[in-house]
Amino acid sequence: MTDTLSTLQNHRSIRKFTDEPVPQEHLEAYIRAGQAAATSSFIQATTVIQVNAQDQREQMAEWAGNQAYIVSAPVFLVFCADMRRHELVCDMHQAEMLSGFTEQFMTATIDVALFAQNVVVAAEADGLGICYIGGLRNNPDKVSTALELPELVYPVFGLCIGHPDQNPEVKPRLPLSVVLKQDRYEDGADADTIRDYDAAVWHYYETRTGGNKSMTWSEQISGMLKKEARPHMLPFLQQRGFLRR
Amino acid sequence: MTDTLSTLQNHRSIRKFTDEPVPQEHLEAYIRAGQAAATSSFIQATTVIQVNAQDQREQMAEWAGNQAYIVSAPVFLVFCADMRRHELVCDMHQAEMLSGFTEQFMTATIDVALFAQNVVVAAEADGLGICYIGGLRNNPDKVSTALELPELVYPVFGLCIGHPDQNPEVKPRLPLSVVLKQDRYEDGADADTIRDYDAAVWHYYETRTGGNKSMTWSEQISGMLKKEARPHMLPFLQQRGFLRR
Repeated sequence: MTDTLSTLQNHRSIRKFTDEPVPQEHLEAYIRAGQAAATSSFIQATTVIQVNAQDQREQMAEWAGNQAYIVSAPVFLVFCADMRRHELVCDMHQAEMLSGFTEQFMTATIDVALFAQNVVVAAEADGLGICYIGGLRNNPDKVSTALELPELVYPVFGLCIGHPDQNPEVKPRLPLSVVLKQDRYEDGADADTIRDYDAAVWHYYETRTGGNKSMTWSEQISGMLKKEARPHMLPFLQQRGFLRR
Repeated sequence: MTDTLSTLQNHRSIRKFTDEPVPQEHLEAYIRAGQAAATSSFIQATTVIQVNAQDQREQMAEWAGNQAYIVSAPVFLVFCADMRRHELVCDMHQAEMLSGFTEQFMTATIDVALFAQNVVVAAEADGLGICYIGGLRNNPDKVSTALELPELVYPVFGLCIGHPDQNPEVKPRLPLSVVLKQDRYEDGADADTIRDYDAAVWHYYETRTGGNKSMTWSEQISGMLKKEARPHMLPFLQQRGFLRR
């Protein structure tokens, strides 16, 4: 097993960091690693905003649903999907950019995710811990205003980076047979496999929380999906110039 | 610099592979590494279809715009965003799943991208080469039918994996100042920086193609963005149960 494979397989979210800073030149190396990820049609649609100001951090922590580690993490980044840059480039060539396509939204969003995951892997290989912050999408309009994001730019997620001050267990994932299929989609055996997996997740929560949280995967997911999922996202994105057609 | 950082920074797409097979147990280790990536609210929305059948490969190569390496690569995977699994899980608990939210589409798509990028990094750390195939989105309906994808599952992209039989240069990326910003979005200097970068990209194409392709980044991007971008995507996705609200 390569060191890299072991880094990848040992990922768990870190929500408590020591005070030890992350040198800016290290962070820049991680960002360069992010840039090196594949980018669809060379689109390079990722912009990262490093948020340093304490008051900004406090606001973001609140908007994300009171996630205090957004304030305490040595580094907090907001990953944005950015097509404003492409509008600039079209202006340079007097070309009229046709924007608002769903495909462009997908390309830009996937670009950000591949970039961010490389940043994560680079940081974890260096012994750091990370936590993605999807909770910024609770209030994407407030985040956009605070960061002065122009039209055609939206915040996809945040990322905390720092030296871990906790050592949580790796969370068990679905059995391979559920996620890797041969030649066609076939899920006839998945319900039974998920029932077995549910027991593993129940055990994970039970031991990790000392019995305070006892929940299976299917309970957790079904409980979440019977509720609305950030219904403001579509109008927000359309207002920012995305997903209009 | 860690080995992992060097793996990340040396990425380039590989479009020509040797005949040497990739052992299935190695591939499964890469997929497990993919599963280990962060997953929003533990959603685990990625399903990978390994496409082995020659006729399927040939069709996909054609649908993706005649990309022959889809046929010749030792491994070809189709990464799907899968919320059918969650419908199954809701059924197990007699919960009514509220589907079709833009946020769910984003969560599932980002999930797939983080997963896939871990697979890529694991494979590249093992000396293999990869090429993402966004071209499957030229014909997402045909790909879905061929792979028997049910509603609430869609093909995000393909991935070729194998031993490299070419050694292309790493493609130059945008200067760091364009992609990493402090505290707020500020692009006043970006146009000038991009003009300098354009020269680097022009040089890359000029030397790589022996003068057959001379193009700057801004030319390439503005040429692409004045055309429609896969206008079938929104109706396709809505028909599959996504992006309805």
